[in-house]
Amino acid sequence: MASMAALFIKTPYDPSHSITKFPNTHFASTFRVSVSVSVPPGRSKRRLRVSSGLIEPDGGKLVELLVDEPLKDLKKGEALSLPRISLSSIDLQWVHVLSEGWASPLRGFMRESEFLQTLHFNTLRLENGSLVNMSVPIVLAIDDSQKHRIGESTKVALFDSNNNPVAILKDIEIYKHPKEERIARTWGTTASGLPYVEEAIVNAGNWLIGGDLEVLEPIKYHDGLDRFRLSPTELREEFTRRNADAVFAFQLRNPVHNGHALLMTDTRRRLLDMGYKNPILLLHPLGGYTKADDVPLSWRMKQHEKVLEDGVLDPETTVVSIFPSPMHYAGPTEVQWHAKARINAGANFYIVGRDPAGMGHPTEKRDLYDADHGKKVLSMAPGLERLNILPFKVAAYDKTQGKMAFFDPSRPQDFVFISGTKMRTLAKNKENPPDGFMCPGGWEVLVEYYDSLVPTINGKVPVAVPA
Amino acid sequence: MASMAALFIKTPYDPSHSITKFPNTHFASTFRVSVSVSVPPGRSKRRLRVSSGLIEPDGGKLVELLVDEPLKDLKKGEALSLPRISLSSIDLQWVHVLSEGWASPLRGFMRESEFLQTLHFNTLRLENGSLVNMSVPIVLAIDDSQKHRIGESTKVALFDSNNNPVAILKDIEIYKHPKEERIARTWGTTASGLPYVEEAIVNAGNWLIGGDLEVLEPIKYHDGLDRFRLSPTELREEFTRRNADAVFAFQLRNPVHNGHALLMTDTRRRLLDMGYKNPILLLHPLGGYTKADDVPLSWRMKQHEKVLEDGVLDPETTVVSIFPSPMHYAGPTEVQWHAKARINAGANFYIVGRDPAGMGHPTEKRDLYDADHGKKVLSMAPGLERLNILPFKVAAYDKTQGKMAFFDPSRPQDFVFISGTKMRTLAKNKENPPDGFMCPGGWEVLVEYYDSLVPTINGKVPVAVPA
Repeated sequence: MASMAALFIKTPYDPSHSITKFPNTHFASTFRVSVSVSVPPGRSKRRLRVSSGLIEPDGGKLVELLVDEPLKDLKKGEALSLPRISLSSIDLQWVHVLSEGWASPLRGFMRESEFLQTLHFNTLRLENGSLVNMSVPIVLAIDDSQKHRIGESTKVALFDSNNNPVAILKDIEIYKHPKEERIARTWGTTASGLPYVEEAIVNAGNWLIGGDLEVLEPIKYHDGLDRFRLSPTELREEFTRRNADAVFAFQLRNPVHNGHALLMTDTRRRLLDMGYKNPILLLHPLGGYTKADDVPLSWRMKQHEKVLEDGVLDPETTVVSIFPSPMHYAGPTEVQWHAKARINAGANFYIVGRDPAGMGHPTEKRDLYDADHGKKVLSMAPGLERLNILPFKVAAYDKTQGKMAFFDPSRPQDFVFISGTKMRTLAKNKENPPDGFMCPGGWEVLVEYYDSLVPTINGKVPVAVPA
Repeated sequence: MASMAALFIKTPYDPSHSITKFPNTHFASTFRVSVSVSVPPGRSKRRLRVSSGLIEPDGGKLVELLVDEPLKDLKKGEALSLPRISLSSIDLQWVHVLSEGWASPLRGFMRESEFLQTLHFNTLRLENGSLVNMSVPIVLAIDDSQKHRIGESTKVALFDSNNNPVAILKDIEIYKHPKEERIARTWGTTASGLPYVEEAIVNAGNWLIGGDLEVLEPIKYHDGLDRFRLSPTELREEFTRRNADAVFAFQLRNPVHNGHALLMTDTRRRLLDMGYKNPILLLHPLGGYTKADDVPLSWRMKQHEKVLEDGVLDPETTVVSIFPSPMHYAGPTEVQWHAKARINAGANFYIVGRDPAGMGHPTEKRDLYDADHGKKVLSMAPGLERLNILPFKVAAYDKTQGKMAFFDPSRPQDFVFISGTKMRTLAKNKENPPDGFMCPGGWEVLVEYYDSLVPTINGKVPVAVPA
């Protein structure tokens, strides 16, 4: 995947090396806003002060929660002495998200006041009275026995599944986990079969524990993809290095086809038309938990690599990185989180499509959300006023041109809509889509992926062989 | 009920008479905010400009939606020519609420953008970018055949159950009624048995129709209680006439006992301590739809009258009026509506109790909402920053004093908590509560009410004889 790595950074990432590339004089006068992003001293190797024209993070500065290098051993020792909480893989993904400041200004798992504001208002109020957007609860559940073990302690230690200490949670607050209410207000339904709910809520404990995080080490997955997991600070550095005067984010959790590519190149063209000199695309596949029938991250990254090798997107103006958040499939509620997190990574334009973060209703034969509600809610969301929302134009296969093109309602007969379901069916059957739908290399990855699935007889979830 | 009427206004209400009492020089310099409330010309008898120190209505001015007197016949004629929608009794209560500006700045039933903002954010964004609170959807449902009949018309006429035209809804927008999502996001549950849901949503149409209202006549119920139904404008006039420099609202839908009275008199004392010269209490029973086992409005008003006759509350500093909204029983979501509507009526202090607008879970043996969430959510709600929230102190029967008193945690053995259930059981059994719990006259009304219930054998809802 070297070619894709090359797309977002020309040399292996070395923050100390990067510093030399970021003189303050580097920033062009075309930057619209000039703000100062102060990087907290937690990461000693990157104790730099980035002055940048990028959009300011929520709350004014990125909240990074890694402990300062000289304190690391001390904190690890302390962690070993504290009451322990074992993290699920989704919990660990949230620690990752929080540690890097994607959820800035959150400083850890939500306490009750933050949880209630998120459920009721999709916002958090800052001390200065202003509101930032925060639409999905980032919470940590514990059960009765864990609560009992914590007792009167004001701190707990969080451990991963290998029993390694990951973080300390301090100034803790334990409060009731109102599961039904959380689900109803986040998803707008309590129907059984919501993937994240089944995975992370139904069997979770009846208490939530909030507090401030001190994360001992950067979260790594050792799956060959860690180098694609740039933090908001690293992304901001990269955008700055490239002298971006606009950053437009494209969230995805599916293979990229030429309709997506058309949309992304067209967006860049529109931004140039608006007067921006160097708009940079953040192609930002979601890397955390996804439901069983989504294409796994490793295969998606392989597919993205082929698409990019094909030259459909310009490496000079594209940054490919992995967004570490788990997926809720909570439609209009979740798309706000997807957008808000990208503000923190420096994006000031966000492309939103039809039915973002949506899925079929788990028990009824319909989509869970109205396909237009996502972009409507996003465009009205408190705390996202600074973000420019770019609604997704509909692309379809134009038979007259033999390629993906924006749908022209004056000649509907010329267009073929290739749904995700149809795409999957074709790939599963090793059939080819129409020429120009997806680059051949990318298509081969998909066919290979479906080929790798262990066939099941009893309708169970297919199991993928890692890519 | 003459004595109660006398409590809030010394003479039969005559707006033209009131004008002479409202010279601009009338307002004491202790008023904190000086704003201008312009009353739209809809009500010709009250074409006055009230300059008042009361809290400004949401959006800067009260939105009253009654048609101007000279246009009334014309509008009635027009209504008869338009596609018709029949209103349920709850729909009519919402027309009432909207017509008087309780939901200012709403100008009619919500269009989709307002509905989505309410569901997701509990706020509405004004044109100037600021937010006002709006937590419950105020929507009108229609079914497929009604939608079909409306066709391409841009206006419809709303008719009451006697087939009289009530209002015109113009510049209409028809959109899908996502019932499950509406219920989940408003109540935080989709369990069956929620009273408002069963009454007004489950069997409602699959479409919602929003638009601007032109209401033909003030909404009246002809139940002997209309004189207690003061509009926000009338309440503001009354507070101004009384030279109020603080207005504290007490929302209730239950009989008043001496614990409530203690709380209200204590609140006034606290406001005087804060430096206000003339705090006025708005004792504001909810008058719209309530669930079957609540005490009906007519009996509650009779009970309130006895309590007030008893002199427990000072007539000089108390205004009793009926809040025309129907009840959702949506806990933390609904308490925001209860508070916001009182801002529009001129209240700048709001008393909030334990589990406001809450009820038992309809299918589980627990309360639907955490008893503290209501006041927490209310205190954090966007759009309610201007309102002072006064949390309810817990009152209980103090055996050592033989009266209701604020609970003293240092001597819990001296206090008896008399729950609503216990109160109802005593009244049903014609037993007396401890002396000092409620004035004897008020208690007699309760006993009389329960005595009036037609006994049922098969557990059906009791039917009350009108008071």
